Amino acid sequence: MSDVTLHVRNAACAAAVLCFGLAGADALAAGEQAEQFTPEYLQLHTTYDAKHSPKIVAPDSVKRGDWFTVTVSVGAGSQHPSLGEHSIRYIALYKDSVEIARAYLHPVYSAPTVTFTVALDEGGSLRALAEPNHSSAWETSKKIEVRP
Amino acid sequence: MSDVTLHVRNAACAAAVLCFGLAGADALAAGEQAEQFTPEYLQLHTTYDAKHSPKIVAPDSVKRGDWFTVTVSVGAGSQHPSLGEHSIRYIALYKDSVEIARAYLHPVYSAPTVTFTVALDEGGSLRALAEPNHSSAWETSKKIEVRP
Amino acid sequence: MSDVTLHVRNAACAAAVLCFGLAGADALAAGEQAEQFTPEYLQLHTTYDAKHSPKIVAPDSVKRGDWFTVTVSVGAGSQHPSLGEHSIRYIALYKDSVEIARAYLHPVYSAPTVTFTVALDEGGSLRALAEPNHSSAWETSKKIEVRP
Amino acid sequence: MSDVTLHVRNAACAAAVLCFGLAGADALAAGEQAEQFTPEYLQLHTTYDAKHSPKIVAPDSVKRGDWFTVTVSVGAGSQHPSLGEHSIRYIALYKDSVEIARAYLHPVYSAPTVTFTVALDEGGSLRALAEPNHSSAWETSKKIEVRP
Repeated sequence: MSDVTLHVRNAACAAAVLCFGLAGADALAAGEQAEQFTPEYLQLHTTYDAKHSPKIVAPDSVKRGDWFTVTVSVGAGSQHPSLGEHSIRYIALYKDSVEIARAYLHPVYSAPTVTFTVALDEGGSLRALAEPNHSSAWETSKKIEVRP
Repeated sequence: MSDVTLHVRNAACAAAVLCFGLAGADALAAGEQAEQFTPEYLQLHTTYDAKHSPKIVAPDSVKRGDWFTVTVSVGAGSQHPSLGEHSIRYIALYKDSVEIARAYLHPVYSAPTVTFTVALDEGGSLRALAEPNHSSAWETSKKIEVRP
Repeated sequence: MSDVTLHVRNAACAAAVLCFGLAGADALAAGEQAEQFTPEYLQLHTTYDAKHSPKIVAPDSVKRGDWFTVTVSVGAGSQHPSLGEHSIRYIALYKDSVEIARAYLHPVYSAPTVTFTVALDEGGSLRALAEPNHSSAWETSKKIEVRP
Repeated sequence: MSDVTLHVRNAACAAAVLCFGLAGADALAAGEQAEQFTPEYLQLHTTYDAKHSPKIVAPDSVKRGDWFTVTVSVGAGSQHPSLGEHSIRYIALYKDSVEIARAYLHPVYSAPTVTFTVALDEGGSLRALAEPNHSSAWETSKKIEVRP
């Protein structure tokens, strides 16, 4: 049984009360969701994995403000598959702590290979993140020099 | 065997040549990928489905330019599950042909319920799209009046 | 003055009450926001515009399930600029009603040119949408044949 | 003048050659783009800023696997504006190094306040990132306990 009383006197308040169904078979019952947490989801993966680590193709050195392409693919030798139940959700590109581009890839239709066109202000590390649906993201980095 | 010759004379050209591995077991071989296309992916779903149609909670009428909340959830009665191999990839909100907000949801950690804070210029149809990983998106719409 | 009473008896209810500040200079006051709605935001743009219409480079015909690249750029002759206050927010690729890839581009760092790697099930129209920050999205389409 | 020769013998190679126009007034000429890099874009901002730091509303303690809501807004006291040339591009939510939800917000139509519904496996820091178009992202974190 649900009993919700919501009283808002201030006209600038917006309220969202979300009540989930509570039937025994509710797909989102807490006990069931807790079982979904496998160790693969616990933290960003920075170790090398032949199937999941992104591969970055980019110049070693660029001129400040010049456009260049960065191609990120996922999987060494062959690409990570793009299946309904198992695919790469997105590929994101960072320069050190700053995100600079991100592509969301739809299962079945998109392969995990994308080319961005970027420019940099300072040198540092290009970081590519690729996140499959069955784990948290995998990261690879590559040093890049930026000439004045 | 691979033989690539790339000759670029114009310094403003950027080239990306992507060669996929061609071993017999290549996960992305064409024959295998073609088998991934099931009818569920062929077009946007606008019919009602108890498990996949988005549910829109929003006012019937708002004042032009006033902020209000729109809550979109997926699934009638109980929510669509958020499992590693089966989840809602994103929920997007449109006003007729114009996209106005989109949330990407990570499997296991995010339930397919999100509340956006939006304002409108003209009345029409709020449209919510929810896309699972095993089909193309499902759409629901709701009329909304915008008062001057 | 704000007076909020929230009473929830059902443990499965989650409530979010959002109260915005109400100072006279509040950046989100309704009157001010209404002034932000210019005609450019009212609907998806499908007419041709030299500066904003996406340009699609893709094959005219592909084999079902074969991977191929689609490059989408924005602007004819030269690219749309990527400035802090004026840039392309994202480029999205659809096959008729189905979204198949989307790249969010960060101002200053990303140029509005992206290459996706995709495969198709059936022929139809590739549609590219590019959305700047000062209007709703611009769309271009290109017919593509899919051979069995 | 541009002279591109591309010879690919391996049928599994896909090539994208992107040539930008080179007229003197090209909006993307290197010299002009370099001027767009202001110090605000150089790194993730973790200091407090009344206008840009995200505000996280979430429980201090939750049960493992139980769904709860997290509301993230931007700006203390009043919200960050949502104007065509100045707005929040996205709000992302992390649990330590793992991204768990992200909402892209469209200028003019969306205010930078979003509510996600999430569940956690382990305690740690909820981190909210909000990225305006005129700088890199701003981050705020909040400790959260997860009970078994």
